[in-house]
Amino acid sequence: MTVDERLAELGIALPQPGNPVASYVMAQRSRSLLFLSGHIAKRDGVPVVGTVGGDVTREEAQQLARQVAIDLLSTVRAAVSSLDSVRVVKVTGFVRSAPGFTEQPFVINGASDLFVDVLGERGQHARSAVGVAELPLGAALEIEAVFEDVAET
Amino acid sequence: MTVDERLAELGIALPQPGNPVASYVMAQRSRSLLFLSGHIAKRDGVPVVGTVGGDVTREEAQQLARQVAIDLLSTVRAAVSSLDSVRVVKVTGFVRSAPGFTEQPFVINGASDLFVDVLGERGQHARSAVGVAELPLGAALEIEAVFEDVAET
Amino acid sequence: MTVDERLAELGIALPQPGNPVASYVMAQRSRSLLFLSGHIAKRDGVPVVGTVGGDVTREEAQQLARQVAIDLLSTVRAAVSSLDSVRVVKVTGFVRSAPGFTEQPFVINGASDLFVDVLGERGQHARSAVGVAELPLGAALEIEAVFEDVAET
Repeated sequence: MTVDERLAELGIALPQPGNPVASYVMAQRSRSLLFLSGHIAKRDGVPVVGTVGGDVTREEAQQLARQVAIDLLSTVRAAVSSLDSVRVVKVTGFVRSAPGFTEQPFVINGASDLFVDVLGERGQHARSAVGVAELPLGAALEIEAVFEDVAET
Repeated sequence: MTVDERLAELGIALPQPGNPVASYVMAQRSRSLLFLSGHIAKRDGVPVVGTVGGDVTREEAQQLARQVAIDLLSTVRAAVSSLDSVRVVKVTGFVRSAPGFTEQPFVINGASDLFVDVLGERGQHARSAVGVAELPLGAALEIEAVFEDVAET
Repeated sequence: MTVDERLAELGIALPQPGNPVASYVMAQRSRSLLFLSGHIAKRDGVPVVGTVGGDVTREEAQQLARQVAIDLLSTVRAAVSSLDSVRVVKVTGFVRSAPGFTEQPFVINGASDLFVDVLGERGQHARSAVGVAELPLGAALEIEAVFEDVAET
């Protein structure tokens, strides 16, 4: 099964890749590595503002992280010839955390699980999750990633 | 035009590369990739202390980010044979943010724009910008980067 | 002297590699690069909760960082054939900081110095250290790293 077929099976439609909110690009390649810019939480294309553990529940945040992972895949697909040759290498999740909120791993699992659901073993990755005080536009979370394009020599 | 010529045209003199404030090196190479340590905001070589959106305005912070980018280029030049063979791959900006300050992208544009001004298309990069509560020495911002040396096989 | 001999000389026994607290793996390789997940501060295998500069002193935190570096080495050894062919490339330290605590570099030196003690010149690395508001499980610090396996082509 190709990744596109797997996405269809999961009922996931990749959105149009987003545009950066500033002076950079959404993904930059260095040989076989693809570095992805931080993608913030959005719902229907609109940033979701709030602190996790405050105005955003951990379950809502996990769903937001899943959507960010879909957005990241959309950016990857625009940068490579095919999603069938990519692997996830590293994910870093920044969670805008209310004081005392310590379940950043639970939140970022929304992204990690999506990658494994879609890419199988090639979706497995190293990861860090941290809690930060502020994020661009007040977004509830921001996730960046490093992918590898195994087709690239 | 070489990068050194372009720097001269922009009136930018690269400073002496800084020294780490602790037990590490300013840049470490892995094959064609060059990983740069976090460089903090300085003015005339002295750390600029404060929170952005608090005692440091967003415009001041953007200028500080531009200077950090110049410092990063200085570190790169000390590590490679020539700036003419380098590309920026990834930039991560940590902005020490006053509560409610959400314009980290505007601030880090000061660095991103400098890289594109100096390196042209080779200055384009993926990027994350986040707001943190505290930074070394109380600095207002800290920026790290990954460069590629295309001359390296 | 091999790295295992050097570890013995320093009286350091590598623990069993830890398990992730969520949906990811502790290390993921991309060709010669090994990306390590964020490892949190532990004492006798139990997360150390607190803020540095608050309930955890900077000296205690430096010792915790040293132990995290040992845990990272343990993860590396499980992922590669031999510690004799690895180099540290990049370290990122997230310190859960009490308000006004700005000695993140001093804290993360505990990890940096351990790497150089064990690996010598191959332990030298680029580094960033930042202060964050919250970390998984309330841990006092979290450190991630990029290693290179020079045996890998």
